[in-house]
Amino acid sequence: MAEETTPLKVALLGAGVVGSQVARILSSEAEELRQRIGRPLELVGVAVRRDDIERPGIDPALFTTDAHALVTRGDLDLVIEVIGGIEPARSLLVAAMESGASIITANKALLAEQFAELSATARANAVDLYYEAAVAGAIPIIRPLRESLVGDTIRVVMGIVNGTTNYILDQMTTNRLSFDVALKQAQDLGFAEADPSADIEGHDAAAKAAILASLAFHTSVRRSEVFCEGITQVTEADIEAADAMGCVIKLLAVAKLNDDRIVVKVHPAMVPKTHPLAAVSGAFNAIFVESVEAGQLMFLGQGAGGAPTASAVMGDVVTVARNRARGTASFLSTGYTKREVAPIGEATSRYYIRFQVEDKPGVLAKCATIFGRHEVSLQTCQQSYLEGLGRTDGLTARLNLMTHEARENALQDVVAELREASFIGETIDYMRIEGK
Amino acid sequence: MAEETTPLKVALLGAGVVGSQVARILSSEAEELRQRIGRPLELVGVAVRRDDIERPGIDPALFTTDAHALVTRGDLDLVIEVIGGIEPARSLLVAAMESGASIITANKALLAEQFAELSATARANAVDLYYEAAVAGAIPIIRPLRESLVGDTIRVVMGIVNGTTNYILDQMTTNRLSFDVALKQAQDLGFAEADPSADIEGHDAAAKAAILASLAFHTSVRRSEVFCEGITQVTEADIEAADAMGCVIKLLAVAKLNDDRIVVKVHPAMVPKTHPLAAVSGAFNAIFVESVEAGQLMFLGQGAGGAPTASAVMGDVVTVARNRARGTASFLSTGYTKREVAPIGEATSRYYIRFQVEDKPGVLAKCATIFGRHEVSLQTCQQSYLEGLGRTDGLTARLNLMTHEARENALQDVVAELREASFIGETIDYMRIEGK
Repeated sequence: MAEETTPLKVALLGAGVVGSQVARILSSEAEELRQRIGRPLELVGVAVRRDDIERPGIDPALFTTDAHALVTRGDLDLVIEVIGGIEPARSLLVAAMESGASIITANKALLAEQFAELSATARANAVDLYYEAAVAGAIPIIRPLRESLVGDTIRVVMGIVNGTTNYILDQMTTNRLSFDVALKQAQDLGFAEADPSADIEGHDAAAKAAILASLAFHTSVRRSEVFCEGITQVTEADIEAADAMGCVIKLLAVAKLNDDRIVVKVHPAMVPKTHPLAAVSGAFNAIFVESVEAGQLMFLGQGAGGAPTASAVMGDVVTVARNRARGTASFLSTGYTKREVAPIGEATSRYYIRFQVEDKPGVLAKCATIFGRHEVSLQTCQQSYLEGLGRTDGLTARLNLMTHEARENALQDVVAELREASFIGETIDYMRIEGK
Repeated sequence: MAEETTPLKVALLGAGVVGSQVARILSSEAEELRQRIGRPLELVGVAVRRDDIERPGIDPALFTTDAHALVTRGDLDLVIEVIGGIEPARSLLVAAMESGASIITANKALLAEQFAELSATARANAVDLYYEAAVAGAIPIIRPLRESLVGDTIRVVMGIVNGTTNYILDQMTTNRLSFDVALKQAQDLGFAEADPSADIEGHDAAAKAAILASLAFHTSVRRSEVFCEGITQVTEADIEAADAMGCVIKLLAVAKLNDDRIVVKVHPAMVPKTHPLAAVSGAFNAIFVESVEAGQLMFLGQGAGGAPTASAVMGDVVTVARNRARGTASFLSTGYTKREVAPIGEATSRYYIRFQVEDKPGVLAKCATIFGRHEVSLQTCQQSYLEGLGRTDGLTARLNLMTHEARENALQDVVAELREASFIGETIDYMRIEGK
């Protein structure tokens, strides 16, 4: 094959944490990339908000504040978008595709909102749309889901996709810190933002859950369809209870087949210590997949950071550039079928529940009757005695229960009825259990 | 896009453990596969050695013992090869490609010998050659290495790629069985063959190491270039020593950058318990990757078995069929650069060594001098006293040493010199340590 020497023209949108690493690799690995692609890449412009900041390693002549003019110049082969957020990213990517450029993006927020629309635009313009970096940073998960497992039927995708919350829960577990202290520590170390709400409320994980669900189930799920609960309510007592049950608490993004529909949700969950996800610590991310034929799979790696995310971006750059060099585009919409997202009430999982009761004969039977009435069956039941036998409320014992697989609706009905019972304390803590 | 209804014609070579599962999925998931590909698949023939055996679920009219006639009929789109071994697999695949069919193969032995030749034939005939099932069964590793990480620089690929030996080492570790007893148990349970040599001598892992090295380092490594040591020499004392050093013993397939060359090897190694590979138990396989930008990654899953391997085959079937439907082939040779395989003597790792010494002043210094002379520096040194102080050989203490990173050649020189020393016992056990 004769080597083509005309460069493929590349525009970069954004020169922040990830963008600066992408620019560095494009420059330092230029010769290696040329060999892998079969043609050289030429960075022809970098769109930034301010072009008067010095950014070492990038030729200042490449900077422009007019991103729209850059993406519509008409001769671009690849546009790499690492600015994030919905706008102006969305308009710029649409304009770039309509001008004939293929897209590499790391923008999870945008994909979680506009996956179907962007896919349609890519298809209409016969260009590629790649986004490996949008979920779980450096972990190759998009290709495994979109290609390697495409001949199989996925039942569950379940992941630790937010490093900040995983670090906080890790510290709460390992060093028995409170949530507030662990969060402060994460902020001091730069693992959490000054405004940490996108992480600790689960919004970041929810955007990734939408993308994972879309890929795994060949459909199109929006962020707004994802049930989302963060980790701000996780207490030291929860951590201790999990430990006693042989579990650890992780913030999980979960997408599950539920008959013909799917459940897509983010919440803290107890995970058995024997499960592969339980050992994923610190800033690592991991995606666990269970499929009909392949069985259990797990993918582990660094979920954030400039260089790891840039690695994922560059993998897409080489793939898209190779397509471009051959005059093809390999983008395939995964959304060939619209699978309905089931309401959270229909989700099923095992549950852990604890509450205080009067230590009197018959109380356990009364509790069990409430569970039975809502068809929630109990797997284990531990009763422990509390200090202070002289307490006036008479609630001197604690029940720790684990249910078999049950419906969320049924569990909520049980909790509501327990709250009304005179022999049970007001505080009823429960947590979903995922994994076996 | 108008739906094309003409089926893509598929031939299956082999109807054993994997082939029968592939045939089952092609039939039971026909409608789902049609949706994912955009065209139906039609199984037009199954080549078997004997066509007088009943194979439930496959139309008997499809069977033929004339594989060559099947692959050269001229109208095939896809040929799936799951017969294994070098011949007749090689000739059949070449004939199939020359007749215009794209190939999906699970044949690690063939790829480890003929990767460059088969790649060239695929390219010359503009057909696809996919082989996800050839390494680590259901674990998607080929696409991550070939595509996701293609913009990065891989330093190390290191895997547990043989379930039989992982099961045996697991039993030796968990239940303190001897090698012989653990092997017998694996055979009784069907995890090991009656003739287990391909597994326990490391040959199976070595073929996979050759393929992994070829992919990770964009070159072409043959099985004969892979250094290979099996697990038959691993003793209960080794297992105990590993445990005392905070490690477990795993049979690893390792491919490492070594300056401009690569080291490719298979051997039992101590792996620190904190390393992600240490927790991979039983019949699971895992591939650990370390790259410049992405850092550490790991891929875990079932490494063998009919259904998991069929999952990997079917992922390739869909990908290749999609290419076929669009009239393209996306096969890319990774062997654009010929990286030399360094001799094993130039490999580096940490080492564990133990031997018995006289418990006299100055002995430790003499030992340390031998290490120093060969530029092997010691990381830790533990001395323990043996029972039987009255023993006549005077060797009453045991030294357990761990070295810093050292060259294999230098370590071998140290061991040879230790063997000559009068104050040291004849038995010198050592093992490589991989991972941090």
